[in-house]
Amino acid sequence: MSRCKLSRVIIAKLRIVTSRKPMEFDQWFNAQLNARPIDPIRLAEPVPVSDLPTPALLLDEARFEANLARMAQWSKTTGIALRPHSKMHKCPVIAHRQLALGAAGICCAKVSEAEVMQRAGIESILITSPVVDERTITRVSELARKNAQLIVVVDHPEAVMRLEAALAQRQATLKILIDIDPGLGRTGIAPNEALLALLQMIDRDCPHLVFLGLQTYAGHCMHIPEFDKRKSKYQRALATGAEARNVVERAGYSVQLMSGGGTGSIDFEADLGILNELQAGSYAFMDIEYRDIESNNGPTFEDFSVALTVLVTLISQPKPRTVTVDAGFKSLASDKMPPQFKDVDGLNYYWGGDEHGIVALDNPSRTLQLGDKLELLTPHCDPTVNLHDYYYVVRDGYVQELWPISTRGCSQ
Amino acid sequence: MSRCKLSRVIIAKLRIVTSRKPMEFDQWFNAQLNARPIDPIRLAEPVPVSDLPTPALLLDEARFEANLARMAQWSKTTGIALRPHSKMHKCPVIAHRQLALGAAGICCAKVSEAEVMQRAGIESILITSPVVDERTITRVSELARKNAQLIVVVDHPEAVMRLEAALAQRQATLKILIDIDPGLGRTGIAPNEALLALLQMIDRDCPHLVFLGLQTYAGHCMHIPEFDKRKSKYQRALATGAEARNVVERAGYSVQLMSGGGTGSIDFEADLGILNELQAGSYAFMDIEYRDIESNNGPTFEDFSVALTVLVTLISQPKPRTVTVDAGFKSLASDKMPPQFKDVDGLNYYWGGDEHGIVALDNPSRTLQLGDKLELLTPHCDPTVNLHDYYYVVRDGYVQELWPISTRGCSQ
Repeated sequence: MSRCKLSRVIIAKLRIVTSRKPMEFDQWFNAQLNARPIDPIRLAEPVPVSDLPTPALLLDEARFEANLARMAQWSKTTGIALRPHSKMHKCPVIAHRQLALGAAGICCAKVSEAEVMQRAGIESILITSPVVDERTITRVSELARKNAQLIVVVDHPEAVMRLEAALAQRQATLKILIDIDPGLGRTGIAPNEALLALLQMIDRDCPHLVFLGLQTYAGHCMHIPEFDKRKSKYQRALATGAEARNVVERAGYSVQLMSGGGTGSIDFEADLGILNELQAGSYAFMDIEYRDIESNNGPTFEDFSVALTVLVTLISQPKPRTVTVDAGFKSLASDKMPPQFKDVDGLNYYWGGDEHGIVALDNPSRTLQLGDKLELLTPHCDPTVNLHDYYYVVRDGYVQELWPISTRGCSQ
Repeated sequence: MSRCKLSRVIIAKLRIVTSRKPMEFDQWFNAQLNARPIDPIRLAEPVPVSDLPTPALLLDEARFEANLARMAQWSKTTGIALRPHSKMHKCPVIAHRQLALGAAGICCAKVSEAEVMQRAGIESILITSPVVDERTITRVSELARKNAQLIVVVDHPEAVMRLEAALAQRQATLKILIDIDPGLGRTGIAPNEALLALLQMIDRDCPHLVFLGLQTYAGHCMHIPEFDKRKSKYQRALATGAEARNVVERAGYSVQLMSGGGTGSIDFEADLGILNELQAGSYAFMDIEYRDIESNNGPTFEDFSVALTVLVTLISQPKPRTVTVDAGFKSLASDKMPPQFKDVDGLNYYWGGDEHGIVALDNPSRTLQLGDKLELLTPHCDPTVNLHDYYYVVRDGYVQELWPISTRGCSQ
């Protein structure tokens, strides 16, 4: 198809989405979710990395595949199921690869993420945040009607009753986990009477909810750099999960699923023996924050290697010892430390605003020229991925495939 | 059109973009830019704000319109042309409104932004970052071929020669500004021999470049809270621009355009008399960072009112004095201070990760319930907007129109 013809077709299709004819809100909302690309784009000719428009999110395919294989092996060895968190990669292509390697399913942070993943053919989905308002409960009930494998966490009796009502109306059932707060203080309940009351209410009043077990996600422990400190804090956090399981089991209910943990807890899970499902996300790509924690094997966490970078271009040199690159807050998450350059020493990145990074030169290990392309290691992979529309998948210095970040922005 | 029929059409169109048939890279890159929606979406029925899926980016239309009118009046009164920076709003609907109120054109930070804006029918565009690599220079030359009003900044002889060659090949001309660094240290050159040499080179060797004037953007001064400190630092910064103009004029060239400044400098521009074009962006929406600077009229900057908020839902209450809302790093820019609640006192937002905010309750001015919707003032509007796909345009508590954030992610 010629370029012009292609563009005409796309614009014609576009006019439908942005039609001047008024649409119902739900119709529009569904249409924009359904319009997201989910399949890989294959390029007719491989493009050298040095020719890409920047900033570009690069995925080193060999490293990425090694990371997936390594975690699949961990799951096999420990007997702990792997349910990768798709909020990190936001990409059905990657979710399918994880499932092909034996993952038990995926996690989604929000309902709109789950809707796109389900459209992409993924059924075993756990939504890890509570859903509480009418609109979201309606959407999750619709999802449940079509997908018997869907699981959602709950942590509040009011939301549970709304969910039950919406499911009853649709004659649908939904599997649930009760969310336990292991000290993160974000969502979940304590392992006390509130937990027991919630469970009994579900058992008594909610025939459309199927209690499956508990979620206990200790995100506050994952990035503690010191190995022993991380281990002991995590152990204390998971004790809350163990206590919750006891409360549930003492009341005569069985806990089929204990879900939680992440990339930073793989060295402890098997010993602790509390979780039977790991929600790790970052292991697939890695980032500076995770790389810099101590592991079982040494001062940095090298079980997985950094596969994700942002390619940038050197666009200016305002001073002799300063250069400027074309990526700032809009291409690199800024909630953590600044990014670092890959394979070059003596370059220090400072935030230069929305679109720029200012780079101090401290005796750099290679010469630099205007127009040079450089790779940045990302500080925090999840919110960095969310700033981009596609992965440029790199093998041997060339890109021949692009993977859409289909659930970018799906936080609803 | 029925919902099903609509979805089928959209999915059919989508299959073209994500075709399994291999595409040339440029063809794909153009297709994905061309597929971005640019027109407003009109809803058949107004939706109450309290019914929206969250997080949702809300734009208070009355405040927004007042902000646009106020700045248009400023431009009229001072005689300084207004060229709003579209990197802030990323929305052709808004750019058209600014132009309708008398703006001289718009700014774009990057070439891909300019490509989408030009497709949306906007011709008077200034690209405010240097373009240096072959691919970007090719693209900007193609834009110039179709658009005689395009202006691009330059700051380096090598990039200028590449640009000249690409334009010559297409028999196109391009207007340029030389970018002067007023002490921000990001892009631009100093007002010395380098400036003169660059100018003479353009005059002598670049028949396809038309020198129009200078850009001198002092972004490092815009958010200084103390009025006098901001004024004096800005005055020193603009002195560099004045010096540059002298260098150029002494060499016998005329400076038609002096572009720079922003929302934080409107109180000084007329007095200083150096710029004849203001690149302000944030004034249209405002954010906490700008609201908290001192102005001519008082301790906060109330020339413009905050029109942009992020609507969130209260989804959990893990502890008696803590609640959790459903928006974190993926819906609110985190490069500045945390967000603040609108119209409610006694709620303090703390980052709770990618998808959550943890809210400490300090004797709140209203009672809160699970499922409540609350509005957050954004810390920094530009990178917050870049996290969303649409504005929900609010009038009297209802939304009847959505405006696409068409250049979201267009940092290339």
